[in-house]
Amino acid sequence: MGSIDSTNDVALSNGSSVGEFKPLEAEEFRKQAHCMVDFIADYYKNVESYPVLSQVEPGYLRERLPETAPYLPESLDKIMSDIQKDIIPGMTHWMSPNFYAFFPATVSSAAFLGEMLSTALNSVGFTWVSSPAATELEMIVMDWLAKMLKLPECFMFSGTGGGVIQNTTSESILCTIIAARERVLENLGPNSIGKLVCYGSDQTHTMFPKTCKLAGIFPDNIRLIPTTLETDFSIDPHVLREMVKADVDAGLIPLFLCATLGTTSTTATDPVSSLSEITNEFNIWMHVDAAYAGSACICPEFRHYLDGIERVDSLSLSPHKWLLAYLDSTCLWVKNPNLLLRALTTNPEYLKNKQSDLDKVVDFKNWQIATGRKFRSLKLWLILRSYGVANLQTHIRSDVAMAKMFEGFVRSDPRFEVVVPRNFSLVCFRLKPLPGSDVEILNKKLNDMLNSTGRVYMTHTIVGGIYMLRLAVGSSLTEEHHVRAVWELIKKLADDLLKEA
Amino acid sequence: MGSIDSTNDVALSNGSSVGEFKPLEAEEFRKQAHCMVDFIADYYKNVESYPVLSQVEPGYLRERLPETAPYLPESLDKIMSDIQKDIIPGMTHWMSPNFYAFFPATVSSAAFLGEMLSTALNSVGFTWVSSPAATELEMIVMDWLAKMLKLPECFMFSGTGGGVIQNTTSESILCTIIAARERVLENLGPNSIGKLVCYGSDQTHTMFPKTCKLAGIFPDNIRLIPTTLETDFSIDPHVLREMVKADVDAGLIPLFLCATLGTTSTTATDPVSSLSEITNEFNIWMHVDAAYAGSACICPEFRHYLDGIERVDSLSLSPHKWLLAYLDSTCLWVKNPNLLLRALTTNPEYLKNKQSDLDKVVDFKNWQIATGRKFRSLKLWLILRSYGVANLQTHIRSDVAMAKMFEGFVRSDPRFEVVVPRNFSLVCFRLKPLPGSDVEILNKKLNDMLNSTGRVYMTHTIVGGIYMLRLAVGSSLTEEHHVRAVWELIKKLADDLLKEA
Repeated sequence: MGSIDSTNDVALSNGSSVGEFKPLEAEEFRKQAHCMVDFIADYYKNVESYPVLSQVEPGYLRERLPETAPYLPESLDKIMSDIQKDIIPGMTHWMSPNFYAFFPATVSSAAFLGEMLSTALNSVGFTWVSSPAATELEMIVMDWLAKMLKLPECFMFSGTGGGVIQNTTSESILCTIIAARERVLENLGPNSIGKLVCYGSDQTHTMFPKTCKLAGIFPDNIRLIPTTLETDFSIDPHVLREMVKADVDAGLIPLFLCATLGTTSTTATDPVSSLSEITNEFNIWMHVDAAYAGSACICPEFRHYLDGIERVDSLSLSPHKWLLAYLDSTCLWVKNPNLLLRALTTNPEYLKNKQSDLDKVVDFKNWQIATGRKFRSLKLWLILRSYGVANLQTHIRSDVAMAKMFEGFVRSDPRFEVVVPRNFSLVCFRLKPLPGSDVEILNKKLNDMLNSTGRVYMTHTIVGGIYMLRLAVGSSLTEEHHVRAVWELIKKLADDLLKEA
Repeated sequence: MGSIDSTNDVALSNGSSVGEFKPLEAEEFRKQAHCMVDFIADYYKNVESYPVLSQVEPGYLRERLPETAPYLPESLDKIMSDIQKDIIPGMTHWMSPNFYAFFPATVSSAAFLGEMLSTALNSVGFTWVSSPAATELEMIVMDWLAKMLKLPECFMFSGTGGGVIQNTTSESILCTIIAARERVLENLGPNSIGKLVCYGSDQTHTMFPKTCKLAGIFPDNIRLIPTTLETDFSIDPHVLREMVKADVDAGLIPLFLCATLGTTSTTATDPVSSLSEITNEFNIWMHVDAAYAGSACICPEFRHYLDGIERVDSLSLSPHKWLLAYLDSTCLWVKNPNLLLRALTTNPEYLKNKQSDLDKVVDFKNWQIATGRKFRSLKLWLILRSYGVANLQTHIRSDVAMAKMFEGFVRSDPRFEVVVPRNFSLVCFRLKPLPGSDVEILNKKLNDMLNSTGRVYMTHTIVGGIYMLRLAVGSSLTEEHHVRAVWELIKKLADDLLKEA
């Protein structure tokens, strides 16, 4: 900030004054950031002592905070004490070792350092020239991770494809639907938009139909293929083929299939290999959403889920879900980057530069929805280097082993059942139906009782009409003894509940 | 991570082994994060010593880094030394006080603390229950900022509207176009999508036509109204009115207008008040993109640019651009949140919960494209409290004063001219045409010479056929003496250049 006289001594209404203002003074920054590091390290140390699910009521915070921003500065001490007093009690603690809800969002020290540095450098990498290191490291790290997943060369910069780090799966899929849409409409004209059909399943994440709608796909042309327990709630290729054929016969244009590795409800896995044969036959863009389970494919024993990936057009995977990356981080690989570029490129005068004009570089603004972007790859680079492939495999296997152990506990208790097969680190289970009592209400009660203890947070789902509890192992602080303790708690509450019933 | 025996001692190909893996051990975290804080504080101290524009050649990094991720962990020391050696030279230093390109991305110690904490808590705030504090603080902070901007109550949660923090302007505008589109198509059916028309100007950011295209607006129906020097490159309401009328006469449906406060090229300001009269008359959704200049409206002397805002449907402003927030941070206010909700709501079983079912809470997943989201408001809350409105006004005024000073330098030198009026902290200028030499080539040369010194980074634009240099004051470390030094450098290089010419 400048030191131009007229701007420095702003007279304040209360008679005091604000002098020269320096928002980024290095030594003050150092002092304050050290203070925040200690706050956070202490938080991680103590996080187990807080109720996992926040116990506040809606509107709690508005009652505690003032109605307007302060006119004059407040001290960091005061602010930190308010964070402890007003914010922490309103947190549902995703970092708690006893957080088993949704899919936990995994973290690590290395990723935190990467995020700090990415924030601090604050480069805006829309074009190569605006941030060469950010662009090039992203290309390198995306190739590294592709190799860890044993993706074919057609998804790598070192081959004929490439990858980009997006914030979320929604954005990744929106970009690919648009690329697929433009490929078709470039030939047929925009009026054909009403003929385009997108396919997912009733287990595909709800962001998928939302994303199709964003892209202008007509609501009647978004097909959610019904799944059943027979195929463990994965897409039956025969059903897809019949549906596609019927659409073609009706004069519609099958555009896009979103297959999932690890659905949100039950970690079902759609059969990539057989589905991709159909999409290739009908010239449908096939995307694999492996947000959660893709990370497991760095272990040879899980890699088979990606068999057939060479016939697929794009793949996304979220390191914030299971690769220790903190939010937000979603990796998207595409086989034909030119199709993305044709759909998403902008070229305004104020961003023009020699290197882009010569087409010698990657400009990541043309691989995403937005123009600006952070130095996103630092986080992943630090994870991969700090831990190495070996520790990351250990991490995946450890979570899976804990889930397997829990699955064993459930199976050993005749009152409970595992509802769908456990594929990764999620166990879907319930109290078995009891004569004379509503099994859904019973299990709902069990879930409510569990969460209201504050000792654990678990969420539910309903699939194939069955209400089930989900224990998703994944929090970076969860250890074996936590999982054992959850099971003890579940058994105890089930005792109480069944006595009542 | 667990301590289940079978997963711990993974035999490694080189004969060593990886033991128990704890990616988030609090004391190790503390040690490493302190180390990163010092690295960053030192970087800020030294950033002025680096060439502002990176001097590396495309492909520099691939030559330096290995082709695959390491199998075994590497030490933090080694990684930090590689950051210094391989990453820093590839940075275009947005944090340098001599960065005057594009719009600088502004930062502050307070925002850094907020970003650290938001990262550390790693809560995923799709629903209220998944993160009550994150949801409620965002509502409060959006109201605080609305009050600082003197927005009418119809944009506040305390009134009848509300606001949400998005990552970027692109996402914000995509959400509002979709809301506007659905409002119309709900009545007319999806087939009318080909009749919808969106309006911006030839000065509107290129993300706007891109975003319209994403939303399925037909390319022929995206109108970029030509602007001229006569209106300082802002939209002429008469031209808009004629265009809208012609579209209506042709059977089309005017849908959306994006007006800009502070265009990217020259900080032109579209006349919100008179434009909004037209959009109200024709029932067009009007959005005001105030990404850069909106922040200035916290000062009474700039607030008039928002006159008429009560007739507008939505407004976005990016605190990462001029409110010291680091990337990414874009605030979006809407007058009728229900229209957003109708277009963007998802309600999968696995996210269902009592509070959402009772409609007692805000679930921010229904206000954005993606499902997941960080605790985005912490950063803004820390900025507003740590500095107070008074210092933030000082900050805006100081940048404007420095730009004004630079404008004075340019006007005092008869070889130069200011090409368009300076509205905020950007000065657009050039060497005046010289008989016998191409003025565009001359100014291009001057820009190249400036940037190749490494002492400064400035970018150009072309508006109304005129190539001009842009000096955008805004880097948080820029002080008056830096701006004086840039002018001295420009004069010296102009001397050299004009001697040649």
